[in-house]
Amino acid sequence: MNVSARWNPNLEALPTSGIRRMFNLAATLEDVVHLSIGQPDFPTPAHIIKAHIKALREGKTRYTMDAGLPELLTALTHYYRGRCKQNLIEENFLETTGAGEAIFLAVTSLAAPGREVIVIEPSFVLFQPLVELAGAQVHRIITTAEQGYQVDPNEVIDAITPRTCAIILNSPGNPTGTVYPPATLQAICHEAANRGVTIISDEVYDRIVFDELPSPSVLDFDIDLDHVIVASSFSKTYSIPGLRVGWLISSSRNVKTLRRYHTYTTTVGNTPGQWAAIEALKGDQTCVHEMVGEYRKRRNRIVELLKACCHLQSYQPQGAFYIMPSLPKGTDGSEFVLRMLHEIRVCATPGDTFGKSCRNAFRLSYATSLERIENAFERMIPWLEKQSF
Amino acid sequence: MNVSARWNPNLEALPTSGIRRMFNLAATLEDVVHLSIGQPDFPTPAHIIKAHIKALREGKTRYTMDAGLPELLTALTHYYRGRCKQNLIEENFLETTGAGEAIFLAVTSLAAPGREVIVIEPSFVLFQPLVELAGAQVHRIITTAEQGYQVDPNEVIDAITPRTCAIILNSPGNPTGTVYPPATLQAICHEAANRGVTIISDEVYDRIVFDELPSPSVLDFDIDLDHVIVASSFSKTYSIPGLRVGWLISSSRNVKTLRRYHTYTTTVGNTPGQWAAIEALKGDQTCVHEMVGEYRKRRNRIVELLKACCHLQSYQPQGAFYIMPSLPKGTDGSEFVLRMLHEIRVCATPGDTFGKSCRNAFRLSYATSLERIENAFERMIPWLEKQSF
Repeated sequence: MNVSARWNPNLEALPTSGIRRMFNLAATLEDVVHLSIGQPDFPTPAHIIKAHIKALREGKTRYTMDAGLPELLTALTHYYRGRCKQNLIEENFLETTGAGEAIFLAVTSLAAPGREVIVIEPSFVLFQPLVELAGAQVHRIITTAEQGYQVDPNEVIDAITPRTCAIILNSPGNPTGTVYPPATLQAICHEAANRGVTIISDEVYDRIVFDELPSPSVLDFDIDLDHVIVASSFSKTYSIPGLRVGWLISSSRNVKTLRRYHTYTTTVGNTPGQWAAIEALKGDQTCVHEMVGEYRKRRNRIVELLKACCHLQSYQPQGAFYIMPSLPKGTDGSEFVLRMLHEIRVCATPGDTFGKSCRNAFRLSYATSLERIENAFERMIPWLEKQSF
Repeated sequence: MNVSARWNPNLEALPTSGIRRMFNLAATLEDVVHLSIGQPDFPTPAHIIKAHIKALREGKTRYTMDAGLPELLTALTHYYRGRCKQNLIEENFLETTGAGEAIFLAVTSLAAPGREVIVIEPSFVLFQPLVELAGAQVHRIITTAEQGYQVDPNEVIDAITPRTCAIILNSPGNPTGTVYPPATLQAICHEAANRGVTIISDEVYDRIVFDELPSPSVLDFDIDLDHVIVASSFSKTYSIPGLRVGWLISSSRNVKTLRRYHTYTTTVGNTPGQWAAIEALKGDQTCVHEMVGEYRKRRNRIVELLKACCHLQSYQPQGAFYIMPSLPKGTDGSEFVLRMLHEIRVCATPGDTFGKSCRNAFRLSYATSLERIENAFERMIPWLEKQSF
């Protein structure tokens, strides 16, 4: 027999991301304006680079402890002490290879055949495939642009069954930029804890929130950490996605299990990057305020520009650097996005990347300059006027 | 209900590593000589640190492409062109978070319920638990110190059944330091390819080989890469374990699948570390020869010292930086190692960490100075004389 490797059938649950598909296609074209890229466009702040270089000069290139650098875990406890009501200690943290690995560990350690995980659509690209990779079923809750992608907590609560092992939350959300009010999070968290369901909360955009809003975290409520796993990262807040330093938070006994799992997926995380992360947490936070200020200006402008677009249903997102307008019902968003790329060279991400219910929508990222945003809409506005649905 | 998170039952396959258990215990004692640590004790070569710093100064802190930095993939193709008979191209490589992630991807993408994976004991700590995590069964082939832990290829071949999806090889091996002769590898590889079984070859120690031996790789044979996944890393060769830069090699169509999986486990690897890795490959290789020269001196001395020890069966390992002597049959190696730690403060790794058949053995790592090695044996030799089994 000369057959190719026979894969674990569960791998079929993992699609090629729509983001990557568009990106590859766009790479074959000229003069493309990208509103498709989900990473900060700001340079990494100089003091963080400096700390990274210092760590390298000091020979910090050996393995860390399984849970990460003790100094980073301590810095994280201090950081959260000012931010949430839970009294977190070092044993509540696990350093991971980006929030990506944290989400992988959280979802695949809980999901299993015969179990269900509640996911709110539009959902970040990792969530649904990972649930299915682990052999569990996704229970989808649908939200819409008309409602600013806010979720009704009762709809989530009503979806809990005895087979539900986890509910995945992501606020501020990718791809929507939607921030849930504290009452929404609280209602879901309390009900989940009461029913023995774990909340997996992806909070990577928790510092990128506008309009003087609080940045609610599931750690703000008085619930047992046995029922909570938070995934987060330095990537977005400090513009260091390529360093791959993230973390997760849970009860110390959950962390013990997740840490063991972690040593089998990636052994440990990158060492000098963790020293850079310590400086990110402890150093001057002006850089964060400046970046968030820029994102806010862009958010304001893109919301205004979308109002000038025909056919699109938009809303005011309050965090992250995404917005997800929708097209008239029944429109094939993938076909629309492809046509937009070919005809006016504006690259967006098709909605079906984020769930079956999002086919008539598309994601725009404003992690790019105001100039490029203006340029994109100078193409989009007249082009949309000529479309009919 | 206030129960703890209900884990995916497959996680039960993952034990806490015996290496970590000993390390934690040793941390509570004073004056311990460690022969237990599996990472190079040499500083990272200066030119590699310099390249890493340069990348940081140039702002190389953003995400790479899914497969890794294109420049690193190209450097790897050039590197292997001089080392093996396969004509590898960029599409045969995937950059991973250390060889650890490469092994995780390889094993869990192939193993599945109803399938078997052949593992040769003593085996590296990740192999058997990962097979079981994926729901498959381990078929263990036993090797012994008496035979220098060489494997009879026919024993491996005879163990192949229609349910066998993979055979895991690791030469030079951790924990044994054993290097398989080309004929052994060739026989196993050809039979596997003929029967549609994938070889997963962990070659992280391929540059740490003594006695003017060739360093045989499964890539030396004319077999279809659809049946081969090689895992490797910069960690050991260049003394940069904390940078977490590894890679895997397979057919381009296998790599496509594994790359997709990789984007769900960790998204991508660390960016500036990959620039450092390029310099490691392209730069002066004197550092590697010097380190290997040191390891050889230590290997020679430790083999000599073990001959002076009562009760121990030893052998001459030809690679890596480990040796795994065995105690008389039926001895509980874990109890022995614990007693050795408590009574003479020498820390080794108990054999059962590497498989059920290795209970009467223990691993010594010589990734430590000759002085410490001498010191350890000054304690061990008289102490062993007083033991009876």
